[in-house]
Amino acid sequence: MSESGAVQPVSPARRGGGRAGRAARQGSIARTGPFRRRIPAYELLDESDLAELEAQADWILSEIGIDFRGDGEALRLFAEAGCEIEGERVRFRPGQARALCATAPASFTLHARDPACSVILGGDHLVLMPGYGSPFVTDLDRGRRYATIEDFRNFVRLAWVSPWLHHSGGTVCEPTDIPVNKRHLDMMLAHLTLSAKPFMGGVTSLSRAEDSIAMARLVFGREFMQSHAVMQANINVNSPLVYDETMTGALRAYAAANQCVCLSPAIFSGAMGPVTPAAVAAQTHAEAMAGIALVQLVRPGCPVVYGSFHNTMNLRSGALSFGSPEANLVTMALAQLARRLAVPVRSGGGQITAANSADGQAMADSTSAMWATILSGANQVWHAAGWLEGGLTMGYEKFAMDLDASGAMLRMVTGMAVNEDTLTRASYREAGPGVNFLSTAHTIQHFASANFIPDIADAGPYETWVERGRPTVVERANDRWKEMLAGYVAPPIAPQVAASLQEFVARRKAELPDEWY
Amino acid sequence: MSESGAVQPVSPARRGGGRAGRAARQGSIARTGPFRRRIPAYELLDESDLAELEAQADWILSEIGIDFRGDGEALRLFAEAGCEIEGERVRFRPGQARALCATAPASFTLHARDPACSVILGGDHLVLMPGYGSPFVTDLDRGRRYATIEDFRNFVRLAWVSPWLHHSGGTVCEPTDIPVNKRHLDMMLAHLTLSAKPFMGGVTSLSRAEDSIAMARLVFGREFMQSHAVMQANINVNSPLVYDETMTGALRAYAAANQCVCLSPAIFSGAMGPVTPAAVAAQTHAEAMAGIALVQLVRPGCPVVYGSFHNTMNLRSGALSFGSPEANLVTMALAQLARRLAVPVRSGGGQITAANSADGQAMADSTSAMWATILSGANQVWHAAGWLEGGLTMGYEKFAMDLDASGAMLRMVTGMAVNEDTLTRASYREAGPGVNFLSTAHTIQHFASANFIPDIADAGPYETWVERGRPTVVERANDRWKEMLAGYVAPPIAPQVAASLQEFVARRKAELPDEWY
Repeated sequence: MSESGAVQPVSPARRGGGRAGRAARQGSIARTGPFRRRIPAYELLDESDLAELEAQADWILSEIGIDFRGDGEALRLFAEAGCEIEGERVRFRPGQARALCATAPASFTLHARDPACSVILGGDHLVLMPGYGSPFVTDLDRGRRYATIEDFRNFVRLAWVSPWLHHSGGTVCEPTDIPVNKRHLDMMLAHLTLSAKPFMGGVTSLSRAEDSIAMARLVFGREFMQSHAVMQANINVNSPLVYDETMTGALRAYAAANQCVCLSPAIFSGAMGPVTPAAVAAQTHAEAMAGIALVQLVRPGCPVVYGSFHNTMNLRSGALSFGSPEANLVTMALAQLARRLAVPVRSGGGQITAANSADGQAMADSTSAMWATILSGANQVWHAAGWLEGGLTMGYEKFAMDLDASGAMLRMVTGMAVNEDTLTRASYREAGPGVNFLSTAHTIQHFASANFIPDIADAGPYETWVERGRPTVVERANDRWKEMLAGYVAPPIAPQVAASLQEFVARRKAELPDEWY
Repeated sequence: MSESGAVQPVSPARRGGGRAGRAARQGSIARTGPFRRRIPAYELLDESDLAELEAQADWILSEIGIDFRGDGEALRLFAEAGCEIEGERVRFRPGQARALCATAPASFTLHARDPACSVILGGDHLVLMPGYGSPFVTDLDRGRRYATIEDFRNFVRLAWVSPWLHHSGGTVCEPTDIPVNKRHLDMMLAHLTLSAKPFMGGVTSLSRAEDSIAMARLVFGREFMQSHAVMQANINVNSPLVYDETMTGALRAYAAANQCVCLSPAIFSGAMGPVTPAAVAAQTHAEAMAGIALVQLVRPGCPVVYGSFHNTMNLRSGALSFGSPEANLVTMALAQLARRLAVPVRSGGGQITAANSADGQAMADSTSAMWATILSGANQVWHAAGWLEGGLTMGYEKFAMDLDASGAMLRMVTGMAVNEDTLTRASYREAGPGVNFLSTAHTIQHFASANFIPDIADAGPYETWVERGRPTVVERANDRWKEMLAGYVAPPIAPQVAASLQEFVARRKAELPDEWY
């Protein structure tokens, strides 16, 4: 498929291949794609609290204002829209930011190279993706080390074969063995060739954003992308209340190309905002709305995701916490605020932790943050797999452990079906008081599919566990990610598309001097 | 205080003592007692599904029926109430079981020896207690072994000094070094002298129930207990749909004494009931209602707790799972059904796991089950600390880790306050775009109390962690429970009450031959 060609990805499920490959592909292709939550979102706050948070966001944007630094074009767009500009500070009349967000779609399809892997963002849809941005990786065999492009590729492969991740992610880890100004090329190449799930593009400079968009066009076609989102960009806010030029440059590039922009206020409470959860929620809302407004000014109707990233600090030691109760409250409130704004929401949670190893603390934090995220009704979950050390490290074993947890969550949100089959009166007539249900027709019929079966969790007897040498879940996870990589088969890609991507990367690498900082 | 005397426990907070003792007491006394959830309960199912589950429970009780085996008195009470009796099978007309439950209080106070530690069960109140029933204990120093009375006492001490447990529990672990028929005496003595929080009494035979009640009367007085609940009894259902004589004998003893009876259907889905979550929920509802009905027939108005215990099995291996998505759905549905029945509910969850060690799997399971439990709106959480191996083992380190998690949960359910102080407009005037909030007056004012600070979780940098020898959370937990035991100070007790308890135990032990099975 050429840049101008139609989108016609080949589903790997239609290809032949060995048993392991088939299993990996079937697991993946059979289960990703649009996924709906079938249980209600949790409504933490009532109407009065929500209205007060919205009023506070409006107050911040009207009285305090928000800086768009170094980006004259952004200031021009805001001025044109009637905002008050004072230097680089932008102020919105109460209600104005919300009004500017109104053209953002409540829901949209994020198209994948394999159409079976396309997802919907918004409504009751749920999209899980790996961690984002770690400079380090760790595994049991080699320990903690700087991440390389091969690690990056491995995580893209692992996400591809997992039935529980719907999205390949963005900067899953930093490929630190590649010059800073060329990393986006190799990362895009990996997402576009080693996976066929949705992905995110580069944002660390305008030209890197443009390169990323150009590479996507080689696969999806310029025309298709004019009216269809095929990639996402993460635009971090330099909280408190600052958007900087690098980020808004990338924002404008993606918005101009009609690709999905995710706005991510990033608030460590007490530092980038006040220490109280209510203030963090209101400030996040203000920052997200201002960014969404800019996207809509660049291109009305451009798909956005209302993002957030927030956590708490131990204000005595300065240590950051993830999955803390205060942060989880903010996660739940923000999903409500985003729903009221009628835009898809990315949770600030995911399976996140400050722990330095994949121990009980790591999983307690991760599970807690994940529950807040999932029950909040978030549409996109970043950091659903791999995160350790507050995001400094992607763990191979943590990744596999998080997949088990993600699969369990996805099972849970399908809910409890209450109907004649699930209530099974016939079973009671067959078994009854004091009689075991193991051999009833209903149990036999449902036994294979009734319960989610994790890949790693060991529920066997203590004695067996001791005989096996007391393997911890981390050791079992080590086996599991290796097994997944061994079973990996790349999704097919038209040779001329692959060649055009390779050529693009080679050309750009030749054009650019190596920059390591 | 004598058996006939008024209740006049002495609050340990009023006593002198060393620094460690003071700290332990202050931590405990300051924070336990009635505790209210201030966030909404999660409503998983809608009216139509809930009505269908209730109709199914009614169908089970009317068409299939439920056995009360070996207890002629129970059958007589049900016959008198108009139930249909066929042998030992009892059948209720649709709506009849619910009607018989109507006299059970929606909410009641469970009085503690220290009135400051009394709790409320029902409404939006929340009571956390340790694990129940483990024959084994484990710790890092001594490994896994049969539990002894000294282990039992240790866990009672740990629960006493924890600010996050409101209840001392029941058979926290089995004191296997004491004859089976005398264990209840030593367990009651520990709950009544080493703690002043609420507790549960013995149920494994009618005489042991009566001994437990007699010992409570030595502390609280017979007259007081006629109109006040001071203890709870766990009545397990021999699911599917069987109450046996031992349990109903104990049930009748506690109900006659007006003490709280907790009914605990125990369903491993696929074995003690169908494999589908909806069926497990409906069957639990039927079994719980039948037991509550019997309590009310013995003594109308006697406080009850609608309990449950359910988990899933890997139907291929027979291994039991805890914290599974299907079990968590049942937990959430049952809290809704209990609320509609207007009785306090004990969750089937808690911090439970099938894991053989306190690793990441253990905490992922535990945290997941705990979230389902807490958000369900459950009033009493059993197994909030210590459980491993599906309840076969109480872990000292797991106990300390679960306390951190319990504390975080209790912080979370206090909710997000949205008001002028928490929104802190003054801070934005003081800091503002691009300016750090660390030194604002609001941050300085709130920094010490703003965020929950766990005892064990380590959020420090990787380098520091490596320097310290890479301690896992389990190693830190090992330090923590020892520190807690070292700081333990027993709550005061009137010498004559302590003497009467000792005398009772000595007399009963002398009267009974040792029975080891």
